[in-house]
Amino acid sequence: MKTNISLSTLSEIKESISKIDTDLLLIVVDSRVWQLYGKKLQESLSEDKTILLYKALEGENAKTIREIENGLEFFLEKGIHRKAHLIAIGGGATSDFGGFLASTLIRGIDWSVVPTTLLSMVDASIGGKTGVNSSFGKNLIGTFHLPKNVWINPEFLETLESSELESGKGEILKYGFLSKEVDKLLKNKASLREIIAKCAEVKEKIVIEDFKEGGRRISLNLGHTFGHALERIYDLPHGVSVFWGMALIFKLFDGNKHLEVLRNYEKSIDAHFGNPPWLNKTFPVDKIMELVTKDKKKKTSNSVQIVKIKEIGAFETEELGFNKIESLLKEKSDELRSFNF
Amino acid sequence: MKTNISLSTLSEIKESISKIDTDLLLIVVDSRVWQLYGKKLQESLSEDKTILLYKALEGENAKTIREIENGLEFFLEKGIHRKAHLIAIGGGATSDFGGFLASTLIRGIDWSVVPTTLLSMVDASIGGKTGVNSSFGKNLIGTFHLPKNVWINPEFLETLESSELESGKGEILKYGFLSKEVDKLLKNKASLREIIAKCAEVKEKIVIEDFKEGGRRISLNLGHTFGHALERIYDLPHGVSVFWGMALIFKLFDGNKHLEVLRNYEKSIDAHFGNPPWLNKTFPVDKIMELVTKDKKKKTSNSVQIVKIKEIGAFETEELGFNKIESLLKEKSDELRSFNF
Repeated sequence: MKTNISLSTLSEIKESISKIDTDLLLIVVDSRVWQLYGKKLQESLSEDKTILLYKALEGENAKTIREIENGLEFFLEKGIHRKAHLIAIGGGATSDFGGFLASTLIRGIDWSVVPTTLLSMVDASIGGKTGVNSSFGKNLIGTFHLPKNVWINPEFLETLESSELESGKGEILKYGFLSKEVDKLLKNKASLREIIAKCAEVKEKIVIEDFKEGGRRISLNLGHTFGHALERIYDLPHGVSVFWGMALIFKLFDGNKHLEVLRNYEKSIDAHFGNPPWLNKTFPVDKIMELVTKDKKKKTSNSVQIVKIKEIGAFETEELGFNKIESLLKEKSDELRSFNF
Repeated sequence: MKTNISLSTLSEIKESISKIDTDLLLIVVDSRVWQLYGKKLQESLSEDKTILLYKALEGENAKTIREIENGLEFFLEKGIHRKAHLIAIGGGATSDFGGFLASTLIRGIDWSVVPTTLLSMVDASIGGKTGVNSSFGKNLIGTFHLPKNVWINPEFLETLESSELESGKGEILKYGFLSKEVDKLLKNKASLREIIAKCAEVKEKIVIEDFKEGGRRISLNLGHTFGHALERIYDLPHGVSVFWGMALIFKLFDGNKHLEVLRNYEKSIDAHFGNPPWLNKTFPVDKIMELVTKDKKKKTSNSVQIVKIKEIGAFETEELGFNKIESLLKEKSDELRSFNF
């Protein structure tokens, strides 16, 4: 089981799609992406296959069970078959949504992704995590369903909003800590194109080794334990919340030693995360705990695994009880109120 | 990947459950089963684990996306974790529903089944097919997610309605054609207990060889291509429709040679399927075609694989275009109107 990941122009994507062994394509495209690129995308779809086009609600709006039902019924009404191939075109929300459709339509059909955001190119589109949100937390409903292809076309970044670019960069910085190769690219101010390709490759390697997150895949969760909570509390773009989630982990568990690296990476990739969202406010211990205790990666009812960095390219995890995390945050809450780096 | 299948008393089930490596059990039980067996079942759940109990709507009523949403949100509100273990208790609808919940809760948790109907003991609970119904057909939405354990307790059959028993027997007869061992048991009028255990074993073997139905698993579809259509048209119990689906296959493609075997099996297992539902009525070619063309097992847009029996224990498949099936049914429709055996 493996995903074929490649940097591809639109015409290369067209060629790859025409080679898929199917007579039926189910296209799931983010409505905003369709507005911007509809004509170009239509031209890039092969003419010798039947095409069913579903325009998904923009971004995270698609990620509800109701929308899943709409998408499923849309395709099932048309009549599909087991060799139908779904292609999700959009950001991470669209691939989460489209992948979940692919995994549950007639008990699973093959699918591929054309990521259109930076975050999706380096993270969401790779690794087969699919899903939607619950009223009780993000991505709590979903499946593992590896896409067959991820075709990365950096052209899409040209129309990406700057906040979305920042978000993707936040997630890229994570790979700096997990991979010496990405660390080197960041330090050498390599092109974004090169960095994207390497991050995607690093993630794919980790995922192949550990598809269902029993081991090494958990490293990708660096910055996410608190990040997901911060994302909800301050309504931050995902990658930005991962940046601050990493900062908290380094501050609380690393004796600060990686905080400087984090800011250096930020400069190298020309990102600007500014000040922590909690600066000079009451540090939201209770809200964080409420969300952390619902973390879907926990393996017991009362603890969660924290990912820490030993040195660049090497991580370790620590199983921490919720009580312990809470008392640590409470103890440090005054200090955190003014924590910047 | 394998399911542990065993004939077990309630106290043996209790012992097995207590040995599951988890502190959290999610119980999904058919409400009707709960009415009949709630107290007994409660006693059979281990005391050293946290138990979240979800009473599913009775039978097929549970199998909608809306009910899936209700079930997911019920468990997510309580807060669950990756080592939580779901146990579905009920007929095939309940295991389809519970298995779908298990496969989509935080991207998949382990699960087990306690089947309470004959149909479920020999078919639905085994093999990891999960799912719900679409407005456009049965089981069109779902996943493959193998249960860890299937604990079969034939005591449950004591309160089963006779129509449900008949339905299970219809499916059992299918195994007569697929397995020489089941054929022998049927011919020797073995005990239902023995027959159940053997059918479950036969299905499990086929499923292990071919989890996602690329090859041999399709044999289990004997009688189902037309059966699913008959089930909808005449509102028949599933296994009964499989019986008539097999009769049609044998009539149309087998030159009648297995029709006699089918009626002999019926007598051996003390079932009473009576006359075909279409007897002396207009044979419903159009309705059948409408449903057959939506068959979720088709691999192209315009054909479906028909399972035929070469001899007891040996099947073959034929890829048939919808046009060909339709013209065959139309040609034979007068004959079918009065077809009995």
